[in-house]
Amino acid sequence: MLLGITMGDPAGVGPEIIIKALAADAALRRRCVVYGAKCILDYYNKTFNHGLNIQLVSSSAEGDADALRVIEPVPLSMEDFEIGKVSSACGNVAFRCLEAAVKAALDKKIGVIVTAPLNKEAMNLAGHHYDGHTGALAHLTGCPRVAMLLWTDLLKVIHVTTHVSMRQACDMIKTPRVVQTIELAHETLVQAGYEKPRIAVAGLNAHAGENGLFGIEEIEEIIPAIEQCKAKGMCVDGPLPPDTVFLKCKNGVYDVVVAMYHDQGHIPLKLLDFQGGVNISVGLPVLRTSVDHGTAFDIAGKGIASDGSLLEAIKVADLLANE
Amino acid sequence: MLLGITMGDPAGVGPEIIIKALAADAALRRRCVVYGAKCILDYYNKTFNHGLNIQLVSSSAEGDADALRVIEPVPLSMEDFEIGKVSSACGNVAFRCLEAAVKAALDKKIGVIVTAPLNKEAMNLAGHHYDGHTGALAHLTGCPRVAMLLWTDLLKVIHVTTHVSMRQACDMIKTPRVVQTIELAHETLVQAGYEKPRIAVAGLNAHAGENGLFGIEEIEEIIPAIEQCKAKGMCVDGPLPPDTVFLKCKNGVYDVVVAMYHDQGHIPLKLLDFQGGVNISVGLPVLRTSVDHGTAFDIAGKGIASDGSLLEAIKVADLLANE
Repeated sequence: MLLGITMGDPAGVGPEIIIKALAADAALRRRCVVYGAKCILDYYNKTFNHGLNIQLVSSSAEGDADALRVIEPVPLSMEDFEIGKVSSACGNVAFRCLEAAVKAALDKKIGVIVTAPLNKEAMNLAGHHYDGHTGALAHLTGCPRVAMLLWTDLLKVIHVTTHVSMRQACDMIKTPRVVQTIELAHETLVQAGYEKPRIAVAGLNAHAGENGLFGIEEIEEIIPAIEQCKAKGMCVDGPLPPDTVFLKCKNGVYDVVVAMYHDQGHIPLKLLDFQGGVNISVGLPVLRTSVDHGTAFDIAGKGIASDGSLLEAIKVADLLANE
Repeated sequence: MLLGITMGDPAGVGPEIIIKALAADAALRRRCVVYGAKCILDYYNKTFNHGLNIQLVSSSAEGDADALRVIEPVPLSMEDFEIGKVSSACGNVAFRCLEAAVKAALDKKIGVIVTAPLNKEAMNLAGHHYDGHTGALAHLTGCPRVAMLLWTDLLKVIHVTTHVSMRQACDMIKTPRVVQTIELAHETLVQAGYEKPRIAVAGLNAHAGENGLFGIEEIEEIIPAIEQCKAKGMCVDGPLPPDTVFLKCKNGVYDVVVAMYHDQGHIPLKLLDFQGGVNISVGLPVLRTSVDHGTAFDIAGKGIASDGSLLEAIKVADLLANE
């Protein structure tokens, strides 16, 4: 099955790293179709002398064998935006590309979606009010049970909450949501070949609340969730102090950590493996992996963005597709 | 000047690692006085065959040259508590030892305080309502401007908030508090020999709020604080996305990170340097360093606790005392 690569925000590093990765690998190019804007892909192709044949196609079945094939759900020209700047035009393109890829995946025209980074502010400016890829994918697939699992060789982390404020994250940590996230961690790791995954659940608060002294979410929400999952036969431990649980997982005591908020999981992941991380959307009817970095507006257009994380996302997409 | 080592909670690993560290180094022993409970120090001395001469003294001027000298502010016997268990008796001893050491430091009888871990729950059970060492030290020295700076070779982090719930931390992140913390980071690193310390300020929220989309604390509280400190001539950058700022600091882009809450700083520190971290209380009229681990009730009494972090705390205490 084909991989469908979404370009993300045209003003970010997405198109740049896609061109870089696909120019270097003709075999990969044949297995891919890009959902994006041809103008910016042409721009990088020309600016950095990749010499690619970039073809606009209307379906993944069309196009020349050696070409980089592009499906363009909405038109965009270079006059509509500026590289490195937030704009609603780019936010709209990023969302419509994702929407088209999801439809193709649900229709079985592509096997796995690999997403380049979008800018949430731009997407929201364009009237698409989601907390990022994960929320948009949940809506587009009609599947509310979705979470972000970050997969690296050293550490695997799934998140109970992601792109919300810290205050909202505190409000969202409720027993059913924690149970769902533990279940998704369990199911994904079983699918990936772990017989009985050892799941560590982090606390929300410092020292996992230290018996209620630094917050009550552990006692009121997280412990009941862990008990429910244990009763279902899962191998779950916690809530564990957030400042040591990632080290324990890295050292092999656990297979995956359930993190309560974005940075709790992202800080250790980026520190251990800045480039190699792959983001898997867990619990969706479509398969999707993603780079673990953002649009990097500060370096977009300079030709210095690494395609390492994109290549890892493609590698994990291939693994999941073969399951 | 003498080092005053406080034993922390008698039921934790404090007395065990103190005996281990001081039994191995007679020169260090002569420069130290321990504020603690003799019964539990005797217990570890005997159980693990250290053969130390442990003497109860009433002031740091007394005692034999080769002895481990102990000042006991309140009596305690082995019948009063159980190793590895929270108790108000132990919480009271831990607090009274700290109180006595602070008084001795303010009276210039000891030069630097080195603290072994106490248990906040036990201390609160005993009626001493502080958020840990830092809060207690602020009260005992009458100095409200205190923060926790964790010092490792790879990464230095100061915290705007520490031992509070995540919800309380969100409420406490206000411009004056952030300004104070940046100033303390600046002053401490200048004292340690950095001419113009490069200070990175982390955001509170994911992606540092992504321009207000994931929280407004960056815009309303943190940015104004950074502007104030820049206007005073400090070299400050931020607010930076929390999931990459620690890596940047580790890679040498910054000298110190201002973290907004306990785990934001502790997760990367423990991951990079689990044993070597030293906790410095910054902004007090007394010098104080501390181990970076807790009471570890789960392993207390087994003879397996490492004295590595205590020895590092003693090393940094010596450095600060010589400034």
